[in-house]
Amino acid sequence: MNFSVTVLGSGAATPTFSRHCSAQVVNLYGVKMLVDCGESSQNQLRQYHVKMQSIHTIFLSHLHGDHFFGLPGLLSTMHLCGRVEPLMVYGPPGIKASLDLLFQVSGTELRYELSVVELDFDGMRTIHEEKSFCVKAFPLHHSVPTYGYIFEEKPPLLNLRKGIRDRYGLTHDDCLRIKQGEDLQLPDGTLVPNSELTMPPRLPRRYAYCCDTAFADDLVEAVRGVDLLCTESTFDNAFQSLAEERCHLTAAQAAKLAREAGVGHLMLTHFSQRYKDIDVLLKEARDIFPETFAANDGLLYEIPSRLAN
Amino acid sequence: MNFSVTVLGSGAATPTFSRHCSAQVVNLYGVKMLVDCGESSQNQLRQYHVKMQSIHTIFLSHLHGDHFFGLPGLLSTMHLCGRVEPLMVYGPPGIKASLDLLFQVSGTELRYELSVVELDFDGMRTIHEEKSFCVKAFPLHHSVPTYGYIFEEKPPLLNLRKGIRDRYGLTHDDCLRIKQGEDLQLPDGTLVPNSELTMPPRLPRRYAYCCDTAFADDLVEAVRGVDLLCTESTFDNAFQSLAEERCHLTAAQAAKLAREAGVGHLMLTHFSQRYKDIDVLLKEARDIFPETFAANDGLLYEIPSRLAN
Repeated sequence: MNFSVTVLGSGAATPTFSRHCSAQVVNLYGVKMLVDCGESSQNQLRQYHVKMQSIHTIFLSHLHGDHFFGLPGLLSTMHLCGRVEPLMVYGPPGIKASLDLLFQVSGTELRYELSVVELDFDGMRTIHEEKSFCVKAFPLHHSVPTYGYIFEEKPPLLNLRKGIRDRYGLTHDDCLRIKQGEDLQLPDGTLVPNSELTMPPRLPRRYAYCCDTAFADDLVEAVRGVDLLCTESTFDNAFQSLAEERCHLTAAQAAKLAREAGVGHLMLTHFSQRYKDIDVLLKEARDIFPETFAANDGLLYEIPSRLAN
Repeated sequence: MNFSVTVLGSGAATPTFSRHCSAQVVNLYGVKMLVDCGESSQNQLRQYHVKMQSIHTIFLSHLHGDHFFGLPGLLSTMHLCGRVEPLMVYGPPGIKASLDLLFQVSGTELRYELSVVELDFDGMRTIHEEKSFCVKAFPLHHSVPTYGYIFEEKPPLLNLRKGIRDRYGLTHDDCLRIKQGEDLQLPDGTLVPNSELTMPPRLPRRYAYCCDTAFADDLVEAVRGVDLLCTESTFDNAFQSLAEERCHLTAAQAAKLAREAGVGHLMLTHFSQRYKDIDVLLKEARDIFPETFAANDGLLYEIPSRLAN
């Protein structure tokens, strides 16, 4: 089952020739979700062949312009191009008032239903549920209210062992109960334990997006064990005090977070424009957490399935 | 003396691969003014080698997103890249409240002085003056408050004929008075008429930007005799009723305006994305007003000097 991340923008603060402002598409079983929406995100969707109207839900980390200023244009273009499907936007307080005012002064009346859910809580909460996955949010540590997101598959059903259905003459409902973990009672009263009927399913996958944030211990628990962690990596160690002042991570801090949280892989993004070549950031992180790679605009990363041990 | 227009975006409503949303740079004696600011204008400035921080003043025609949604990002980037020079923005009411709210929710405190002048008047007014030129504004006829702009050189001084300074032993002040049109009285009382002392200067040039608007007779007077008229040309004649409904011009109407106003050249822009090839629009306009050309992203047009007859 498809679970991928397409990076639309991987730069911090301002766009450059090679890196647009923050935006990603998370595709989970064909449900496409936009995460952050820096200026020109609508162009980047086109550039990387993601149909704009296929965007199902939008999650904004925070309202700094490089994560948000592409939203009014994208929503307008969806309207002008005939969208009728409803759209939901999640993010910190301020989105709704901003969009309302911009649509008012531009005389725009969207022809689709736009629902804006403004997040304002501590701790981890499930904010969005689909049949096969959910999205959780938790506060980050930045200069304005900011949320991290975890995209999490629901535990898959167990797999029936080969031939089980015919051997015991199982109905569809029998199969479903067994896949959900029940044992099987035969007509003679014998109990067949579930472990003899099923194979373990693949593990549910999780993707965490943490951008922008300073380092804090509670992040380690929040992202513990995710398959892929994407964090900002605005600076290298030489600018650690600047990173702290501006509530950003260095590459080393991002890697420390990944190591302590025991994540599968770390994707660095949100690079300061001062780095023409981000090798210094990548090396700094890999020295601490080798399973690190760097985002670039257009990168498509498939999160692989894993079987339980 | 340089008087040029660089087109940053020439498409209507939504960006495409080949046309960004409306934006232009008018360069008058090195003073660079941005006219409209669709999304990605900051990228387009970089693309066409216009230094972002060299933008001196910004004029917005109206607040539809395709003319305005690039402004918050551009102003933020100017700030993040260290701008300290003040900046003035002109346009219809609603700009200030929109920017104030966006900068509030994004926690942005600009380090340069931003002055927003909201236009709300009928008729033609001079709204901005520089040493050698002025900018006039006048209302257009669109679905939201919209202004056209005329960039107008002030009349140049007369040119002294060769050798005049030495022949009459003129001081600097004498020369200035003669260049301003005065005759010269010699010590013996003889009056030398100005026409014997000077040559006519080149004619002051004018550039009119009218986008977006429906056709109306008052536009003809507003842009009468300008050297270059840039108007929208969203549709061709086949869509005239749609153009009227949406308060836009067809190519034929743009050409009719140019012909009736006796302008030098007509530049068409703001093409509907339905036209993969805009030849139909260009032909329609040229049949009525041959001195027509089409804008494209990146076009640089120099308005030539003309001598008085």
